[in-house]
Amino acid sequence: MALWNGRFSRDTDALVAAYTASVDYDKRLYPYDIACSIAHAEMLGEAGIIESADACMIVDELQAIRQEIDEWTFEWRQDLEDVHMNIEATLIERLGDAGARLHTGRSRNDQIATDERLYLRDQVELIQKLLRQTQKALVNLGVAHSTAILPGLTHFQHAQPVLFAHHLLAYVEMFERDVSRLEDCRRRFNVLPLGAGALAGSTLPLNRELVARKLGFDGVTANSMDAVADRDYLVEFLAALALVAMHCSRLAEDTVVWMSQEFGFIELDDAFCTGSSLMPQKKNPDIAELTRGKTGRVYGALMGMLTILKGLPLTYNRDLQEDKEGLFDAIDTVAGTLAVLAPMFATAWIHSDAMEEAASDPALMATDLAEWLVRGGVPFREAHHQVGRFVAWCRERDMALNDATLGQMRETIPAAQPECLDLFSPRKSVAARELYGGTGPDRVDQQLTTWQEKLKHVESRSSST
Amino acid sequence: MALWNGRFSRDTDALVAAYTASVDYDKRLYPYDIACSIAHAEMLGEAGIIESADACMIVDELQAIRQEIDEWTFEWRQDLEDVHMNIEATLIERLGDAGARLHTGRSRNDQIATDERLYLRDQVELIQKLLRQTQKALVNLGVAHSTAILPGLTHFQHAQPVLFAHHLLAYVEMFERDVSRLEDCRRRFNVLPLGAGALAGSTLPLNRELVARKLGFDGVTANSMDAVADRDYLVEFLAALALVAMHCSRLAEDTVVWMSQEFGFIELDDAFCTGSSLMPQKKNPDIAELTRGKTGRVYGALMGMLTILKGLPLTYNRDLQEDKEGLFDAIDTVAGTLAVLAPMFATAWIHSDAMEEAASDPALMATDLAEWLVRGGVPFREAHHQVGRFVAWCRERDMALNDATLGQMRETIPAAQPECLDLFSPRKSVAARELYGGTGPDRVDQQLTTWQEKLKHVESRSSST
Amino acid sequence: MALWNGRFSRDTDALVAAYTASVDYDKRLYPYDIACSIAHAEMLGEAGIIESADACMIVDELQAIRQEIDEWTFEWRQDLEDVHMNIEATLIERLGDAGARLHTGRSRNDQIATDERLYLRDQVELIQKLLRQTQKALVNLGVAHSTAILPGLTHFQHAQPVLFAHHLLAYVEMFERDVSRLEDCRRRFNVLPLGAGALAGSTLPLNRELVARKLGFDGVTANSMDAVADRDYLVEFLAALALVAMHCSRLAEDTVVWMSQEFGFIELDDAFCTGSSLMPQKKNPDIAELTRGKTGRVYGALMGMLTILKGLPLTYNRDLQEDKEGLFDAIDTVAGTLAVLAPMFATAWIHSDAMEEAASDPALMATDLAEWLVRGGVPFREAHHQVGRFVAWCRERDMALNDATLGQMRETIPAAQPECLDLFSPRKSVAARELYGGTGPDRVDQQLTTWQEKLKHVESRSSST
Amino acid sequence: MALWNGRFSRDTDALVAAYTASVDYDKRLYPYDIACSIAHAEMLGEAGIIESADACMIVDELQAIRQEIDEWTFEWRQDLEDVHMNIEATLIERLGDAGARLHTGRSRNDQIATDERLYLRDQVELIQKLLRQTQKALVNLGVAHSTAILPGLTHFQHAQPVLFAHHLLAYVEMFERDVSRLEDCRRRFNVLPLGAGALAGSTLPLNRELVARKLGFDGVTANSMDAVADRDYLVEFLAALALVAMHCSRLAEDTVVWMSQEFGFIELDDAFCTGSSLMPQKKNPDIAELTRGKTGRVYGALMGMLTILKGLPLTYNRDLQEDKEGLFDAIDTVAGTLAVLAPMFATAWIHSDAMEEAASDPALMATDLAEWLVRGGVPFREAHHQVGRFVAWCRERDMALNDATLGQMRETIPAAQPECLDLFSPRKSVAARELYGGTGPDRVDQQLTTWQEKLKHVESRSSST
Repeated sequence: MALWNGRFSRDTDALVAAYTASVDYDKRLYPYDIACSIAHAEMLGEAGIIESADACMIVDELQAIRQEIDEWTFEWRQDLEDVHMNIEATLIERLGDAGARLHTGRSRNDQIATDERLYLRDQVELIQKLLRQTQKALVNLGVAHSTAILPGLTHFQHAQPVLFAHHLLAYVEMFERDVSRLEDCRRRFNVLPLGAGALAGSTLPLNRELVARKLGFDGVTANSMDAVADRDYLVEFLAALALVAMHCSRLAEDTVVWMSQEFGFIELDDAFCTGSSLMPQKKNPDIAELTRGKTGRVYGALMGMLTILKGLPLTYNRDLQEDKEGLFDAIDTVAGTLAVLAPMFATAWIHSDAMEEAASDPALMATDLAEWLVRGGVPFREAHHQVGRFVAWCRERDMALNDATLGQMRETIPAAQPECLDLFSPRKSVAARELYGGTGPDRVDQQLTTWQEKLKHVESRSSST
Repeated sequence: MALWNGRFSRDTDALVAAYTASVDYDKRLYPYDIACSIAHAEMLGEAGIIESADACMIVDELQAIRQEIDEWTFEWRQDLEDVHMNIEATLIERLGDAGARLHTGRSRNDQIATDERLYLRDQVELIQKLLRQTQKALVNLGVAHSTAILPGLTHFQHAQPVLFAHHLLAYVEMFERDVSRLEDCRRRFNVLPLGAGALAGSTLPLNRELVARKLGFDGVTANSMDAVADRDYLVEFLAALALVAMHCSRLAEDTVVWMSQEFGFIELDDAFCTGSSLMPQKKNPDIAELTRGKTGRVYGALMGMLTILKGLPLTYNRDLQEDKEGLFDAIDTVAGTLAVLAPMFATAWIHSDAMEEAASDPALMATDLAEWLVRGGVPFREAHHQVGRFVAWCRERDMALNDATLGQMRETIPAAQPECLDLFSPRKSVAARELYGGTGPDRVDQQLTTWQEKLKHVESRSSST
Repeated sequence: MALWNGRFSRDTDALVAAYTASVDYDKRLYPYDIACSIAHAEMLGEAGIIESADACMIVDELQAIRQEIDEWTFEWRQDLEDVHMNIEATLIERLGDAGARLHTGRSRNDQIATDERLYLRDQVELIQKLLRQTQKALVNLGVAHSTAILPGLTHFQHAQPVLFAHHLLAYVEMFERDVSRLEDCRRRFNVLPLGAGALAGSTLPLNRELVARKLGFDGVTANSMDAVADRDYLVEFLAALALVAMHCSRLAEDTVVWMSQEFGFIELDDAFCTGSSLMPQKKNPDIAELTRGKTGRVYGALMGMLTILKGLPLTYNRDLQEDKEGLFDAIDTVAGTLAVLAPMFATAWIHSDAMEEAASDPALMATDLAEWLVRGGVPFREAHHQVGRFVAWCRERDMALNDATLGQMRETIPAAQPECLDLFSPRKSVAARELYGGTGPDRVDQQLTTWQEKLKHVESRSSST
Repeated sequence: MALWNGRFSRDTDALVAAYTASVDYDKRLYPYDIACSIAHAEMLGEAGIIESADACMIVDELQAIRQEIDEWTFEWRQDLEDVHMNIEATLIERLGDAGARLHTGRSRNDQIATDERLYLRDQVELIQKLLRQTQKALVNLGVAHSTAILPGLTHFQHAQPVLFAHHLLAYVEMFERDVSRLEDCRRRFNVLPLGAGALAGSTLPLNRELVARKLGFDGVTANSMDAVADRDYLVEFLAALALVAMHCSRLAEDTVVWMSQEFGFIELDDAFCTGSSLMPQKKNPDIAELTRGKTGRVYGALMGMLTILKGLPLTYNRDLQEDKEGLFDAIDTVAGTLAVLAPMFATAWIHSDAMEEAASDPALMATDLAEWLVRGGVPFREAHHQVGRFVAWCRERDMALNDATLGQMRETIPAAQPECLDLFSPRKSVAARELYGGTGPDRVDQQLTTWQEKLKHVESRSSST
């Protein structure tokens, strides 16, 4: 029996109840709903809107209910629609009039907006923690293989040699932006909507600042209609998660590629792969593939939320109930992915010999040759052209660049000197790139050290087995 | 213990098992997986690839397993990954060597593609049936209020009067296209992938045509690599569902608008509305709002699936496992929505008096006046301009169009005749539109009759209470 | 000066005119708009709604205007909003009253819906033709390299050997579904909306069937409100294009991978690659990369259109004007991509030696060994397990599968016979897969022949240079 | 003739050139590309990598080229691919060797990343400025109608009366979050990627900090591979624009609704509406409708960009070229929309009498009655139930709430007192909500004043006519 049905002459149709009920999924919000109600009740008591004794009873009973839910002894009822009504109805059932005073001066519209922000605050923290752990796993892997060198790719073609650790650190940078983006999001949504009522505020002397302080909000919302209509924070958060998922998908792609027979740069541990039901030899990088695939559902959740809000008139409309399942799923997806990536990398086998062999393709050092010419005064475009001609010359003869003699090189590069023949070493190439941000070994070590220091208090995740 | 782990030296990490397992959701496919296995086993026996006795044992045991699952006595194990492995492992546990012969000549790659197509065939049928029921509810509502007239809107502005039934029939047309689109989708995907193996076919003399016939497929796939890499049918199906959801969202929008205090054209039954936790007077069209909002998740599922497939190299990649949850959710969402719309409309109160009052706004008949002039030989653009001037003239004087005298009308419309003053009737306006496809009462009755006939065998859904 | 401004007291603000004008892009529809107007005018004349002489003048002048536009001598004016008004205003300017009679009994709402369907009909044909040309290029490439063999991948890992032609034919199948999907779409939208008027039909005795016949439509729309509110056909068409783009993205991904130094299976011609501004050695598969990237904009256009329609009340709303630019862009993108893929493949160098070397990895034949055991009566699961153990045994000893002696093999595979040692040949493996749909050479030749026959009338595209 | 083609033996195919060229749209970046090149050239000179004289010549010529482009006298060539190559080729053509030295130590990969960030910095500023102007227009409208009162809606149903200005201020809050979100985005991307080279940094002693200072960046990127692979800033920016577009769509929806005949709360000026080609009486809120519809393309651009990046391996891939057109279109769309909304509202007619009449629906004050009871000690749930019963009681008798006598009221609300009968005034209702964030007149005035102060330096946009 709904708590709002005074004006109704018929009960809700069962089909409707099933269609509109959200308790199956929004019960996930119960710790936040109860925290919100406790703060509200305390304020109502302190502000003299209800008796202190009633406020105390409400708070005590809410804490009891919270414990029951924690211990799985609370009975959720779909006919009570949502997490709010399940808890409030139980409260009223147990406390009578005192319980019936809890919902004074508030609406589910401002209540859910408060619950969601409290919930989201914890999720921001969770995702940030997992991002830090993933960063740490990558940094540790870089430290463990700090001299490994592989062919850096552009256009999926051999470009220039880079340190494996430098490649890993690129992802550490991406995840750092993710942490910072989530922090900005958190800062923006951490204001209290409670007190906005259904849409217009309240005629009762509520103390919103007090509630905000109790719940750890940095302030209160300034416009009641905006407060109940707003789901910007979910879109912003989902967009941030979409970027995390996208970063993971790029890392996953690199991993899948590196583990192919043709590349053979890494091999994931047996514990982090699965096999084939048909082909006995298979050992597949399923985690990385799933990580890549799961990007789709996070993008979908973002698109779903944007669709819901498009053209929605002010203020609260029931469409907004649809803001939760996609959000929960996106959080679970991203958290689950980050949780598994760290141990996957921590246990991976790095084939640095295969990497280095691939990195020894002399074509990777063509730029070094061009830049050597520049240092000798040849205009860059001219240097580029001459080296390009040299590449073509070798290619026509099916000859590797480092098989050419100085004389042969001079056919296309007149200014070539004997030391040019020594440039075709990936180690030398890398060592020559000590510019800030570059792949030079000292620079990379410096970065690794900086990150180790920054992440030293982050707890490492290890495999769960 | 995985069935594929001969070549593995370590068990799967627990975190990995949780991340990669799909049995929690893909067990929904069990009737199709078992049907597929039964057909495969029978074929293996008939083709002499395994002994007939073994085939019979397999088929019998699969039927037993199916019954156990139906009756909720089957134990699903997450460590067995997916629906296929759960069933096959149980079979082997019970039958030993005979069970171990089932997976001969097939892979999970072609097996899941077969399961999904079988599943989808049933879902196409389900959604088509629900679409038909929704059409029937709308047609019945139109028949019950066949003379109701309301202001047709363009740009959300009064445009021309239309019959309420004509408005409803617009949705009947949309849903008809949905039925047809699903049919095309079904026709395209109803070919058997089994026999494609992991990606290359099989070295065993499988009889694919036989399996296709047993499972009701219209044919077999022509390329094994395509067969296991293909998820086009899911995208096409999800795009069709996105259109259904979009149609429902437009119908929902009309409903929400009509039930506003300002329009007041319909009132949904109490059993199909919910109230406010704060505002005692509220009775909200929540179903329509949720229907509108749920469009987002269907769009999201489509976008998610497209994202998964983008740039995926051939053939099967584990990313494809992510094809299910969004699909299941989209189906549940659309089916749930269609199921609730029919009884919602069947029980709605139609305020045809309020509709007609609004439809009596004389500005709605301005086009009739222009077309009257055209029939008298005035070029349309000139007629349009004169009537526009007449509208402006009345507006400047804050006068309704039908309050003007003939003399006043002639100031802007020189050719006006006394009968022009009689054009400002919504009934006359509607009656004048008997062109095929138009809102004339005879035309609309004809359409209603045609649809009643077409839908007469469709079982009506009524409220579930 | 707008043709509709009789009732307006002020001109449109310049900013508004710029914001609302669509002529810059919708002028692309002019051939269809004029065809539509000619058919409409002829019908008005034949039905006696306007004088035959007027109808003739209109038709002649419209043909003159069409020629002027063809020859770039027509002046488009942004202040006339759209393609319809530009043409009609010019007609009136030149013909006076006769011209002013053209818009009798129609609205821009049904006019644009007609124009778009006519336009789309041509685009369906164009895309189908380009799909056929792409199929032909792939089939020709397969024929030219019909014995080339490469390692088929699942999970981006060596799985089983397949013929290169078999791999190409997988895409031919995908494109075939695209052709068929577009055909279904065309069939569904090829009905005439004209006559629906603004939303309610017309009071004039229009002959809609006559117009439909003149314009090649299969019928007329049955509900005027649906006819002007409907953009389903655009969503359906864009979803079909999204699938084409997705297929191209998968083919592009394969191409990029194959051209990497590590795979080295193909090399695109210099004319179909570009270089690096910095690295002289680079030759990048830019076309394939762009093809893959362009998928995003097609998906975006689909999502944009779905967003526009979500929750839009009946009937026409100006939001629908936004249906064009995304559509045009998606068509241009997909057509441009298909046009360039065919010559790119036609001029590519196939390194069948590198393919075959990779395909000789004996692990690719592990399934053949398991299926050999099955033919000898070993249950498949047992066979799979034994071969898996054999793989692990070899791996522990860093030994290739085909380096093991029979005795060594029997440690894990007791039933192994000397002929097992001969299974590690990719040619034999492929030859053993003559099941329909499989990669056996005879099957693949059969498929190639079938497609050659089917595509023989398709004009080949060659490079444009 | 491409500048990179030393190693190529054939020219680019014409079809390929057309497919890959981006100059048609990326030329929009020329001011940023030239600024970037000037800073780079100066640094090369100052660091002694090239001669100072060469650096000066380059800078002077680049300034000349910039002026030519500004004045439309520069000839863009599609065969030179992109904005970078067009400018550099011209430079080399004019300066010879000196010009050929410009590209020293950089790649188009880090160059475009720098150009885009410079461009984006200006766009952030532009959008922020337009958001401020829109806020100002809304605040001004609120000030001009500070006493207007309308029925606040939840679920599109009459909920509680609110001040019109309070409703407008809800959007001012949304746009404020947009401004802040763009600022965070800007802060995050405002670091210099130049110096990352193609992917690995440079062997030349570049001074990246100097270039950063010259170009107004807050720092330099820390990882060269990340620097060239990163497009996070575009996704973040597009997500911020999607939120702006969504806010505009909600404001547009409110506007469309308010201008309907049934609501009649506002009327847009003739200069901000357009008419119908068929219906002479029509005056449509096209701008608001287009604003709502244009949301789709912004969402589509975001989805397109996310799709491009999904699963893209490091580092630069040509897919990234597709990052521009969607971005440019989204910016143009959002900027164009904001530019037209401000004058549209500035010139709108507010029908405050119609608003107030609608706000006088006594059901809107039901919550006030319940809260009155709460102040008298009735538990809220009980108060809610009694008032709900009262609503139902009146409804059964087809009676307005304020037509009931005290005696009648007491049948369902025993504690009712005479003053309850006075609660049915929207002015009193609003006046009772002076809680911070609420719709009380003093609170709203305070907000208006605060915003006026904050926005006083923002230049008002007026109509362009």
